[in-house]
Amino acid sequence: MKKSPDFASSSLKVKELSRLLGCPFEGDGGTMIHGVSSLEKAKEGDLVFLALHKFRPLLEKSRASAAIIPVEEKYDRIPVIKSKNPYLAFIKAVELFFKPYRLEPGIHPQAFVSPSAKIGKNVAVGAFSFIGDEVEIGVGTIIFPLVNIFPQVKIGKETVIHSHVSIREKVRIGNRVFIHNGAVIGSDGFGYLKAEDGSHTKIPQKGTLIIEDDVEVGANTTIDRAALGETVIKKGTKIDNLVQIAHNVEIGKNSILAAQTGIAGSTKIGKNVIMGGQVGVADHVNIGDNVTAAAKSGISKNIPSKSFVAGSPHLNIRDWRKVQVLLPQLYDLVKDIKKLKKKVEELENKIKGSSGV
Amino acid sequence: MKKSPDFASSSLKVKELSRLLGCPFEGDGGTMIHGVSSLEKAKEGDLVFLALHKFRPLLEKSRASAAIIPVEEKYDRIPVIKSKNPYLAFIKAVELFFKPYRLEPGIHPQAFVSPSAKIGKNVAVGAFSFIGDEVEIGVGTIIFPLVNIFPQVKIGKETVIHSHVSIREKVRIGNRVFIHNGAVIGSDGFGYLKAEDGSHTKIPQKGTLIIEDDVEVGANTTIDRAALGETVIKKGTKIDNLVQIAHNVEIGKNSILAAQTGIAGSTKIGKNVIMGGQVGVADHVNIGDNVTAAAKSGISKNIPSKSFVAGSPHLNIRDWRKVQVLLPQLYDLVKDIKKLKKKVEELENKIKGSSGV
Amino acid sequence: MKKSPDFASSSLKVKELSRLLGCPFEGDGGTMIHGVSSLEKAKEGDLVFLALHKFRPLLEKSRASAAIIPVEEKYDRIPVIKSKNPYLAFIKAVELFFKPYRLEPGIHPQAFVSPSAKIGKNVAVGAFSFIGDEVEIGVGTIIFPLVNIFPQVKIGKETVIHSHVSIREKVRIGNRVFIHNGAVIGSDGFGYLKAEDGSHTKIPQKGTLIIEDDVEVGANTTIDRAALGETVIKKGTKIDNLVQIAHNVEIGKNSILAAQTGIAGSTKIGKNVIMGGQVGVADHVNIGDNVTAAAKSGISKNIPSKSFVAGSPHLNIRDWRKVQVLLPQLYDLVKDIKKLKKKVEELENKIKGSSGV
Repeated sequence: MKKSPDFASSSLKVKELSRLLGCPFEGDGGTMIHGVSSLEKAKEGDLVFLALHKFRPLLEKSRASAAIIPVEEKYDRIPVIKSKNPYLAFIKAVELFFKPYRLEPGIHPQAFVSPSAKIGKNVAVGAFSFIGDEVEIGVGTIIFPLVNIFPQVKIGKETVIHSHVSIREKVRIGNRVFIHNGAVIGSDGFGYLKAEDGSHTKIPQKGTLIIEDDVEVGANTTIDRAALGETVIKKGTKIDNLVQIAHNVEIGKNSILAAQTGIAGSTKIGKNVIMGGQVGVADHVNIGDNVTAAAKSGISKNIPSKSFVAGSPHLNIRDWRKVQVLLPQLYDLVKDIKKLKKKVEELENKIKGSSGV
Repeated sequence: MKKSPDFASSSLKVKELSRLLGCPFEGDGGTMIHGVSSLEKAKEGDLVFLALHKFRPLLEKSRASAAIIPVEEKYDRIPVIKSKNPYLAFIKAVELFFKPYRLEPGIHPQAFVSPSAKIGKNVAVGAFSFIGDEVEIGVGTIIFPLVNIFPQVKIGKETVIHSHVSIREKVRIGNRVFIHNGAVIGSDGFGYLKAEDGSHTKIPQKGTLIIEDDVEVGANTTIDRAALGETVIKKGTKIDNLVQIAHNVEIGKNSILAAQTGIAGSTKIGKNVIMGGQVGVADHVNIGDNVTAAAKSGISKNIPSKSFVAGSPHLNIRDWRKVQVLLPQLYDLVKDIKKLKKKVEELENKIKGSSGV
Repeated sequence: MKKSPDFASSSLKVKELSRLLGCPFEGDGGTMIHGVSSLEKAKEGDLVFLALHKFRPLLEKSRASAAIIPVEEKYDRIPVIKSKNPYLAFIKAVELFFKPYRLEPGIHPQAFVSPSAKIGKNVAVGAFSFIGDEVEIGVGTIIFPLVNIFPQVKIGKETVIHSHVSIREKVRIGNRVFIHNGAVIGSDGFGYLKAEDGSHTKIPQKGTLIIEDDVEVGANTTIDRAALGETVIKKGTKIDNLVQIAHNVEIGKNSILAAQTGIAGSTKIGKNVIMGGQVGVADHVNIGDNVTAAAKSGISKNIPSKSFVAGSPHLNIRDWRKVQVLLPQLYDLVKDIKKLKKKVEELENKIKGSSGV
């Protein structure tokens, strides 16, 4: 299993870049570009991008040899490529220079593939990876070394499963999914029935897990299978490292879950939801579409669509900010109240005195 | 290594189910049951259960072909099996229909087993698993593929070690223990001695870890060995995914730790303790028996038995709830205090005026 | 691959210990020592240490056969070794008795090592470990079983990589580094560009990760590579289990990050920083040198050097403590304010009455 031949940077002329990105250029189209960089760190031969006009002073000082700039900008110190969305064009350019490392198609002689597994064309299976009975793997999918795919798993096409991933029995994974190193996909949910003697009987976790197309799952993240039915991660959702998703959770399309967030059992999360890091959501909660939860939010109640929440237990972001401003003033508030008490007592005494009681 | 032959659902008549569960049935004992489901999602051929009388409307609408119901219920629309604990009987029924996936006994030809290891009868060792020197594995234990068992580890009988688990040297694991995928069992504790130049000398972590019978350890959870002596997880305790348990911790019997909880070094936790997700407990803390800590609690002081705590730093749950109700009112409190100040000033001025000073 | 021959405890006389530690002894130098222990748990034949004079009553009751004590202490009940830093001397003694388990040098026949990899002298590569193309591994480094080292990784000398670790392409790791089991080193950072249809385009993560000398990385911890440029962990920093370090983070020398802490992208952390467990730091934050953050701190703003912070959002530790003392008094404060309101109203009415309005 050789390294992919394009696992190295290449060199391109500005006019070639312009053609490959589908964006017009101005200036010397023959300038050679050897890599990409940020405005601040660029060296000769690098391509950079200007996202907003306000960063133009950084472009002036940059040592880059070419830049992708907004269509409305004018710049002639170095050759430029003009784009309506310079960041997106730059991302495409990055991919032209650095192909990510991938395995060549083929099954490594030190892998184990069950005779009953169906392996598509151009699939790569790395060394010491185990492909169980009746597994199906679609065209062009890459299984890195040291992966365990349990029986009856179905994986779509052009999906990447990184090293040390476990995909448990019967889990279904879509197309163009990324599962990063060490993730556990379809582990048992955490459910027990307590007996009178205090011991816990395991509730069988016989459901499964469906990961739809274009989902990304971070390193060492764990996603549990359902007790009955299915845990579901819908199309386009991106999950960071060390996230916990419990049994029977459903997450809608194009949501974002940052690192170390945890979602407890049977909770439903809408589409386009954004959760910062270390958020916790209790079980059986409903979170609407387009909700944003700040990092470290603790959520134990339903949240309507389009809300922005923070804190634990969570508050609307405006209320939460008010509280955070006032908390450090608590000490002064207490002093104020003491002073008021004293003054009121004095007033009471004076009035008593003046009224002759 | 073939898949276990009972890794598929079976079909049973109601009267056979009744006999296997040891519970009487009423209605047509010949009705065929092909699977299990929840009241809401059941289809024809499914068995369901009614835990409480109040869910009876769901049973009325359910498309299930049979139900396990409490002994005191009467129901004759479909055949029923009567149990004192319908949920527990249902769990047993689930296990009759879906055997969890297990490896067949035997050592995969692509595994490595040290010649000095003692492997019991009916043990399975999956492909690419490494069994070190002087390891002992009890009867019927299953080691899935890609597991590393370091030297001198002792594992009991009928225990399940899932793929990608590391069990470090000298750790002792009991009977009927489940270690889920990717867990790290017996890693070095985190302890350093700071030198005058700011550098840290590692304190040797030479102790070990004991996991007693019937413990379950979640996916990608980490449990550290002791510096000296032993980290101990007692019988029947269940630990969820991505939990951190530091060196020299002791956890009592039948406790429950939900996902992403972390317990710092040398802390002692009693029996029947329940911790929600993302709880943190500081080092050298004592937590009594039957304590409940709500999700995201931060605990840095001892907690007496039978307490229910929440918040960070933790409070008694009643005090914590009061604070959470009042926090969003802080803004109004501040306004109230300002008004009072003004009024008191006005009163002072009036009295001054009226007293002619 | 045999176990290391010194993976067992040895026995030493007090006078030999004294010589090996470079510390004088008093009493019977011929006393045999077979192990090490704490003052409380010591049995005959054990060596213990007395860190501070105040623990002397524990030494009086200890069954240990010898003790390391401060130079200024006098003690003659058992033989003693005198040291300016008894804890540090004890750590050295522990290492004399228990060598940690290491693999013998050599490449296991069931490992895969690319022909283009450069493997130094006395390197061990365990079974089912995969060493990719153009990898360089320095003298005396130990790669445990089931490790995946991606192409073009460079690892220094005397480094230990534990089982189930992934080290992604092009990452550079220094000398005497410890990477514990299941850690993911150099995974993709978490960055997307949102399109108008709500879908997310992955921002290529083409940078790398540098881990300098003497760093320790805990079990199942994840450290992401940079988007462009480098994520950097500087010399001597120690990172606990289940920590998340995002792309482009820089952590200074000799810092300590306890378990389950998360650092978001592009954040810079100084040297000698200490973070308790479950701390979260937002992206693009600057944290100075010698900062301490209590467990569960949530940090979203810059922190100057030498600060001690706690809470989420973080406060200076003194302010935070004041707030924590006052929070449980909120209920009483509210009652006080109500009483004051009533009294002030009464006063207002009295004054109105007395002034004849």
